[in-house]
Amino acid sequence: MKLGFIGLGVMGAPMAAHLVAAGHDVSGFDVHTAAGEKLQAAGGRAAADVADAVARAEVVITMLPNHPQVEAVALGEGGVLAAAAPGTLLIDMSTIRPETSIEVANLARDKEIRVLDAPVSGGQAGAEQAALSIMVGGSEEDFDTAKPLFEALGKTIVHVGPHGAGQVVKAANQLVVGGIYGLVAEAIVLLEASGVDAATGLDVLAGGLAGSRILELKRKSMVDRQFAPGFRIDLHHKDMGIALAAARQADVALPLTGLVAQLVAAGRAMGYGSLDHSALLKVVEQLSGRVPAEV
Amino acid sequence: MKLGFIGLGVMGAPMAAHLVAAGHDVSGFDVHTAAGEKLQAAGGRAAADVADAVARAEVVITMLPNHPQVEAVALGEGGVLAAAAPGTLLIDMSTIRPETSIEVANLARDKEIRVLDAPVSGGQAGAEQAALSIMVGGSEEDFDTAKPLFEALGKTIVHVGPHGAGQVVKAANQLVVGGIYGLVAEAIVLLEASGVDAATGLDVLAGGLAGSRILELKRKSMVDRQFAPGFRIDLHHKDMGIALAAARQADVALPLTGLVAQLVAAGRAMGYGSLDHSALLKVVEQLSGRVPAEV
Amino acid sequence: MKLGFIGLGVMGAPMAAHLVAAGHDVSGFDVHTAAGEKLQAAGGRAAADVADAVARAEVVITMLPNHPQVEAVALGEGGVLAAAAPGTLLIDMSTIRPETSIEVANLARDKEIRVLDAPVSGGQAGAEQAALSIMVGGSEEDFDTAKPLFEALGKTIVHVGPHGAGQVVKAANQLVVGGIYGLVAEAIVLLEASGVDAATGLDVLAGGLAGSRILELKRKSMVDRQFAPGFRIDLHHKDMGIALAAARQADVALPLTGLVAQLVAAGRAMGYGSLDHSALLKVVEQLSGRVPAEV
Amino acid sequence: MKLGFIGLGVMGAPMAAHLVAAGHDVSGFDVHTAAGEKLQAAGGRAAADVADAVARAEVVITMLPNHPQVEAVALGEGGVLAAAAPGTLLIDMSTIRPETSIEVANLARDKEIRVLDAPVSGGQAGAEQAALSIMVGGSEEDFDTAKPLFEALGKTIVHVGPHGAGQVVKAANQLVVGGIYGLVAEAIVLLEASGVDAATGLDVLAGGLAGSRILELKRKSMVDRQFAPGFRIDLHHKDMGIALAAARQADVALPLTGLVAQLVAAGRAMGYGSLDHSALLKVVEQLSGRVPAEV
Repeated sequence: MKLGFIGLGVMGAPMAAHLVAAGHDVSGFDVHTAAGEKLQAAGGRAAADVADAVARAEVVITMLPNHPQVEAVALGEGGVLAAAAPGTLLIDMSTIRPETSIEVANLARDKEIRVLDAPVSGGQAGAEQAALSIMVGGSEEDFDTAKPLFEALGKTIVHVGPHGAGQVVKAANQLVVGGIYGLVAEAIVLLEASGVDAATGLDVLAGGLAGSRILELKRKSMVDRQFAPGFRIDLHHKDMGIALAAARQADVALPLTGLVAQLVAAGRAMGYGSLDHSALLKVVEQLSGRVPAEV
Repeated sequence: MKLGFIGLGVMGAPMAAHLVAAGHDVSGFDVHTAAGEKLQAAGGRAAADVADAVARAEVVITMLPNHPQVEAVALGEGGVLAAAAPGTLLIDMSTIRPETSIEVANLARDKEIRVLDAPVSGGQAGAEQAALSIMVGGSEEDFDTAKPLFEALGKTIVHVGPHGAGQVVKAANQLVVGGIYGLVAEAIVLLEASGVDAATGLDVLAGGLAGSRILELKRKSMVDRQFAPGFRIDLHHKDMGIALAAARQADVALPLTGLVAQLVAAGRAMGYGSLDHSALLKVVEQLSGRVPAEV
Repeated sequence: MKLGFIGLGVMGAPMAAHLVAAGHDVSGFDVHTAAGEKLQAAGGRAAADVADAVARAEVVITMLPNHPQVEAVALGEGGVLAAAAPGTLLIDMSTIRPETSIEVANLARDKEIRVLDAPVSGGQAGAEQAALSIMVGGSEEDFDTAKPLFEALGKTIVHVGPHGAGQVVKAANQLVVGGIYGLVAEAIVLLEASGVDAATGLDVLAGGLAGSRILELKRKSMVDRQFAPGFRIDLHHKDMGIALAAARQADVALPLTGLVAQLVAAGRAMGYGSLDHSALLKVVEQLSGRVPAEV
Repeated sequence: MKLGFIGLGVMGAPMAAHLVAAGHDVSGFDVHTAAGEKLQAAGGRAAADVADAVARAEVVITMLPNHPQVEAVALGEGGVLAAAAPGTLLIDMSTIRPETSIEVANLARDKEIRVLDAPVSGGQAGAEQAALSIMVGGSEEDFDTAKPLFEALGKTIVHVGPHGAGQVVKAANQLVVGGIYGLVAEAIVLLEASGVDAATGLDVLAGGLAGSRILELKRKSMVDRQFAPGFRIDLHHKDMGIALAAARQADVALPLTGLVAQLVAAGRAMGYGSLDHSALLKVVEQLSGRVPAEV
């Protein structure tokens, strides 16, 4: 299949390479031209700009940092909606606000361009190992078209609803993940400050109703204060902003999400933005005066 | 072994019965005399009062609603410390504030009475099926003495630290459980208000880093608004009070725990105290105006 | 002075009329043409569009709902930056995100258009009585130019810093106001639920360190459940979004602001958006099960 | 009048001295005997113990750190209820949980001892200058009896309701005060991190709807980082515990109070317990990474 791929960063580059490996004809573009050359070396084609990447494509995939970049690439001059032929399918795999996904889909309809929002979880490791979870919003028919492509990129691939639904599910995922990190951090600080061995205590929690994937995967590294990413706090901070925007859009009140967003913001503001999101523990520790600030 | 058992309620009654079944000589007492008669029917002995239950016991187990009852039974006139012989082991399996556990242990030391705090999780079902998780604080030696008794009552039995440590681990467990319920509730409200099928969305969350035992066991019942207990909000409200007391005692600041405690308090204040703690969903729904209040 | 005035709503209309009364030559435009006709009747001139309002103006004032409207009017086709002569002063009196104010100022610099951000507080009554508080960001020189105009509109007029500073101060104002309403609401609910006469209790609070302008002006109406606006919850909800955006822009963590934003969102979601912001009391009441939901 | 006065600390000592100066016959007791000697030097009488202070008194005043001390002095062996003659009036001016005030009143009734709860605000300075605010719970008749005594100690003296009501009003006061400090702290951090002069910004806030006694009295010292007490964070931490206990007793949910309590706890845990409660600013600063931790 003829594909355009816009955004060849730490996520996009390995994803585009997987699509090349799966036999697709991939024209890629990134603002950093070295990324395009790398794709070319991997058997793809380095496009000169967005319009060039899009021109011959049946499907265009975008993997971009946030909604302003998606708006520029999709809606801007020389962007996807301007350059793509009617009938093209635009799959935005960026994690952005649901309202932007819906707006892009609405504007695309006028140009007979089809759109899916398909954010992923699993991080850089998931992208490299083609093991992403992909949450897809849009029509059933377009999902069916895209499914073979998704299968080259991920393992769990779910059509979750109409335009924007992929982003909403991603937002829900991130608010739960951020919140559980915060709760586990509070549990660790309480245990340690009470003179209880945190590793032993968390073993008990992990085995009962308090158990979670995070406790399973991260309790040892958290107790050992190993915060190599993984998924950086800076990115989780961006995602909490999306969760709050989604809540505002849906006209709901999410008190824990509102507080978790500020704790994640604290992690970034304290200088831990490049650490793994499990470093939320450092925020709770400082709040409890249990860490000599070394930033 | 000769056992005294004080507190034969929904938890204590099946626990005492399991100990009888395991071959122990159990003298039980409860303020509701019918409970004692029931124990007698099960092969135990109905004691006339605390002192009577304690008099001949090598080990005394208490399973009481909260710290005032533990203080009265352990420290009061005719209580365990007054009535038990030196060398007796007092195992308090109630869920109470760590500071009370520590205080009881300190006062008991003067009378040469040994003490363990050993709160449980698993609820009424866990008590009936002898499948409790038991978190034990106190000396290694006393834990070894008590272990055969615990094995008649539960499956996961962990010595987590010194006096009070069992209560701290239980408090940590409950703050994480309450918090995850709140987060899942916020996720459901966000999904539904955004027009996404919550069941489908939660399936995705359950399969990734947001996964938890609660999502595994309760996502279906929460989406279906089935809130038969399980573990009642009223009890979780009590436990959040203990978590805050433990935080105060340890001199730590737990912002999420502080907010979760108020959301659980809201569940009780709104009239949902007898529903399962997963009914925290109803609180978040009302905050988002998504439920016609029917209480 | 020749003025253009864009945005003749409940705030803008009386403001434009005050400027006419002060002897200025005001060309006004609003998407609702009736508003322009009303201005004409008051002695101004109804412009045909933004460009027409701007064409002859030495100073252009904008008073618009939120940042997308400001972006459209200032930066869009036929907007202020396109239509105004070099040297024109653009005063944006809308309440918007600081980052948009800064962006507009930066883009205007290239066109030699001078910019001030000058959000107000005091609401509709303040606008009608020319009693607004005006918080101004931008250069000292431009502030001096604008001062006579501000004096026709308000009483407290303060130059608070560079571009965006007016918006930041307004955001700080709104987070404090929203938070105090929340705190007073919690005090009232606690007093009433404890069987204490709230009016008497609040009298004591008002006289001491807990005293505030809100307690002074609103404690009677809150206790009496009189929630006629005043300043609507819907508008405060918008402003809390700005406060969170400002915090994100400044890279700070504001936990109380994050929670207040969700409580205000709850007020709107519960159907109280058209009530005065003091109706935050209704949110806290419902959380405490003290109000039969009648929405 | 013959008075007993128990608790001659930084608050109680000047209060007892004022009562001596007003012509009363005051027998005082404190666990630190030096305090009794000081009272004697001021014209009072140093009692040997609680019973001795109470024996001849028509009115007994207690001014103690927290509820355990009140329970011990009022209800313990040789305590007020045991030692006082029927008809004695016990005025507890300590700040404690409302439920303890109510419990003491209930137990005293059986002994025909009358009780008022009469917590104060105004701090050490207020005690020394006889300028306290006094919030009184109990019967109208007992309030009338006590009023002349209160007039020797304070300026604002209000009968707010039945037993416990004084404590509830004090709790409401403290939650509002703590919350406003938190909000002002967040405003300062937002202003400063945005490059706005905080002093100028707070001047604007102080003049409008965001105005408060705290902004009036403390904005300069907060911006200057002057945190000499005043009222120590450690004491406010105790009072937030009382506010949460009062909320629990009244069966209400107070989300902002729950979070403010944790921020105040953070102030103490971070080592600022001996600073003025306005030092909540330091907590918010650290959360935003704006202070090199120097504790």
